[in-house]
Amino acid sequence: TFGACGAVTGVKNPVLLARHICDQQRVPLSLGRIPPCLLAGEGAHRYAIEHNIATVAPDSLISDKAIRTFKHCMKRFNRHQEHEDKRMKYNTGFTSELQKQMDTVGAVCVDTKGNIAVACSSGGVLLKRSGRIGQAAMQGAGCWADSTVGVVSTGCGEHLMATCLAREAARNIHASDCPTSALHSTFVDGFLGSPLLSNVEEKLAGLLVIQVKGGRGEMLYAHTTDSMCIGYMATNNKKPKSRMSRLPAGSKHGFSLTLEGVSF
Amino acid sequence: TFGACGAVTGVKNPVLLARHICDQQRVPLSLGRIPPCLLAGEGAHRYAIEHNIATVAPDSLISDKAIRTFKHCMKRFNRHQEHEDKRMKYNTGFTSELQKQMDTVGAVCVDTKGNIAVACSSGGVLLKRSGRIGQAAMQGAGCWADSTVGVVSTGCGEHLMATCLAREAARNIHASDCPTSALHSTFVDGFLGSPLLSNVEEKLAGLLVIQVKGGRGEMLYAHTTDSMCIGYMATNNKKPKSRMSRLPAGSKHGFSLTLEGVSF
Repeated sequence: TFGACGAVTGVKNPVLLARHICDQQRVPLSLGRIPPCLLAGEGAHRYAIEHNIATVAPDSLISDKAIRTFKHCMKRFNRHQEHEDKRMKYNTGFTSELQKQMDTVGAVCVDTKGNIAVACSSGGVLLKRSGRIGQAAMQGAGCWADSTVGVVSTGCGEHLMATCLAREAARNIHASDCPTSALHSTFVDGFLGSPLLSNVEEKLAGLLVIQVKGGRGEMLYAHTTDSMCIGYMATNNKKPKSRMSRLPAGSKHGFSLTLEGVSF
Repeated sequence: TFGACGAVTGVKNPVLLARHICDQQRVPLSLGRIPPCLLAGEGAHRYAIEHNIATVAPDSLISDKAIRTFKHCMKRFNRHQEHEDKRMKYNTGFTSELQKQMDTVGAVCVDTKGNIAVACSSGGVLLKRSGRIGQAAMQGAGCWADSTVGVVSTGCGEHLMATCLAREAARNIHASDCPTSALHSTFVDGFLGSPLLSNVEEKLAGLLVIQVKGGRGEMLYAHTTDSMCIGYMATNNKKPKSRMSRLPAGSKHGFSLTLEGVSF
């Protein structure tokens, strides 16, 4: 089952609200009413209160760092709006600065019975419009889980939604004997080369994938962003391993990809 | 490109707001800001006002019929809540009554150059929670369009979102020589038999599909709902043709399907 929330303020851990909505998909409502799988805005906030999911003053969720980043961006933005003649100057460099600040967190796991669960949460893109819902709230874009494959994504939400990238990766992995080459072709054909993104210059995505098949598993990740931070651990590990994956020197983000995998 | 809005009140034609959001995907914003592809709630309403998309008093969008249906449902619902002992009595029959009232409208079209466009709009399920976003706002669930296939869906939004059914149909049609059997297997394997809906008794969906390949086209539709109303016309037709497609007598909605197609 799938559950999500978006464009909601004042919920301490939106992923717990999403989890509650997801779990309720299995609980039939009276009179054949359908439990929602995606709630947004004020309605999502009310749902959280009714179901005892922690809500807080929205201000308390804003870190000092986020305020600094926001003020910095707004200053650049206002300067850019005011000085039409010097726009190019202010535009240069800032684009990639904006797109670097992506903060999606995703998790994929499998239990000893082979059940796969995934979750993700994201602050979204910088200087976004109020009411924007991103890929994290969209089944098939931000995440996908079925009986053998789990996928979470990061990157530019709009690119991930246009291509349903998490679902695409899962389907390609199902259809292939080699999850590595299936993930590679997902990026090459289903993302970097997708006609659905023909108007986008820099195509930004990262995927974290688990496949479980015949008692063995593969953990894979790939990204077209400059970097992607990965952590993983198995039941028999004492500590999680982590690493910062980066595009090879000379590769340009949004145009090329790097891919790695670990068997378990 | 894809654009959508959800959980928004007071917008006269939400599909025009979705269209505007979709079109803006092709217009780069300054400073590398990303135009949103899904807007919800108050933010969506503000976007409509800023972009001169007609807004009206929310009350003016409520038809007399909708008020009657709502009052009838709330009466049943309240009676059901009050009389715990007689719940079964009130539950019986009402479930299918609720689920019959689906009002999604979808359109798929192809121009003389082979460009495919799709759109859909939906009032959602009855007695839904405030803030619910349905399949119509979700790429891959409510609609899909690429260079050769266009799909729109109707049915129970939560079932369509869980299975990304529109995307699924497009992929199966791409991978097959026969769009009819591809659409059939989408329903049998990807919906009625999907492990993702194992907890759902009655699985409700309808798909309307166009495929264009080598100058020829197929229009196909299939549904597990009791009925689905279809209208179609080609440039050389004077009037659209329409028909009400129904499940064969003896078939149970949510468990079986009917499928038909027209070549053009």
